[in-house]
Amino acid sequence: MYRLYYSPGACSLAAHIILEELGLPFELELRSALKGSGTQTPEYLSVNPKGRVPALQSSSGDIGGVGGVLTELPAILFFLAVRHPEGHLLPCEPGAQARCIEWLNWLSGTVHTLAYGQIWRPQRVLDDPSCFPDVVAMGIKNVERDYAFIEHQLRTLPDTESFTIVHPVLLVFWLWGKCIGLDMSKKYPMWAHTMSLVIERPAVRRALATEGIDLGLFT
Amino acid sequence: MYRLYYSPGACSLAAHIILEELGLPFELELRSALKGSGTQTPEYLSVNPKGRVPALQSSSGDIGGVGGVLTELPAILFFLAVRHPEGHLLPCEPGAQARCIEWLNWLSGTVHTLAYGQIWRPQRVLDDPSCFPDVVAMGIKNVERDYAFIEHQLRTLPDTESFTIVHPVLLVFWLWGKCIGLDMSKKYPMWAHTMSLVIERPAVRRALATEGIDLGLFT
Repeated sequence: MYRLYYSPGACSLAAHIILEELGLPFELELRSALKGSGTQTPEYLSVNPKGRVPALQSSSGDIGGVGGVLTELPAILFFLAVRHPEGHLLPCEPGAQARCIEWLNWLSGTVHTLAYGQIWRPQRVLDDPSCFPDVVAMGIKNVERDYAFIEHQLRTLPDTESFTIVHPVLLVFWLWGKCIGLDMSKKYPMWAHTMSLVIERPAVRRALATEGIDLGLFT
Repeated sequence: MYRLYYSPGACSLAAHIILEELGLPFELELRSALKGSGTQTPEYLSVNPKGRVPALQSSSGDIGGVGGVLTELPAILFFLAVRHPEGHLLPCEPGAQARCIEWLNWLSGTVHTLAYGQIWRPQRVLDDPSCFPDVVAMGIKNVERDYAFIEHQLRTLPDTESFTIVHPVLLVFWLWGKCIGLDMSKKYPMWAHTMSLVIERPAVRRALATEGIDLGLFT
């Protein structure tokens, strides 16, 4: 039995989708990243000292150490795919697996932590609020540069037309692009095509419905 | 035959160490990250459009797509460990493998891209040079917070007393801590102990010697 600590529409959605895909028993535990308090309580910090979502807890002992809790979205996705190979969510060859990790690492560090960090949490970058607008503006520029890269490099994704652990992360970033007002379908047609296939999947629809996310955001 | 695009003392050093550990034939190709031009030439951008080091190129076709080039340090380290299992550089169990990826992803995104990005490349965070000192100061605070976390969490590293693909990354961050003036040995005794074992390895010493890095930095 898995427990996923999540916040609706946060990057934890990608892990939620993979749990649905695998058809495993799991429970969701809400920690609102937006309010802050939900991820900064002593109780949650004892589960995940980083105070972020997602965190995945397993009661079966298959995640070793640290109370059976795993953090960092790429690690959680990788773990679920390798632990449950019957889901075919990660290619078998080392080179193709590494290509997926290359995508996940870049999406997590460069796109999420840096670019979206600038937009949504400029206080992590500097103290002086008078500089925040400049940080946010550069964050939006960075997202647009990164999104152009995604559109151009999508062809390098193993099994682009299929479904891997990278796809639900691309779905999250699609939603975030909508959230900051980018005209996603127009600017990124290849990405839009990939998303149109992804949202046909019943597991994806179940996760989106549970988190209250409108399917219309994908058109 | 592998080719590693590197810059001395950059995070590419971790991939260099792993190539030495595996005893594989490889060649190094210098791209100076400090000068900028070395990673921003049209020729290098055709190899790695991200314009960063490291990039790993394989002539044997075992890295699929994109000219057989792999980027993102965690992906390169993972690939080498899985492609060459005889090196025993990654645990076998999915949970322990994921724990290593958790470490690599956090070190790459939160510590390198965000915190050191603030210190060394504030121009990636905002345009206004008058705000740069504030960005750098917050970067140093972030590094110190992250380094305290490393010291506290080292016990969660699978095979802490052994050697995994996470260890050479910790070595790089040790050097960078010295570089920004932190009293590493005094502040982080557990990390210092781990490093004292790591630098005894002949492969590590070969890589450090090739990159011109003084062993005295580890005491």
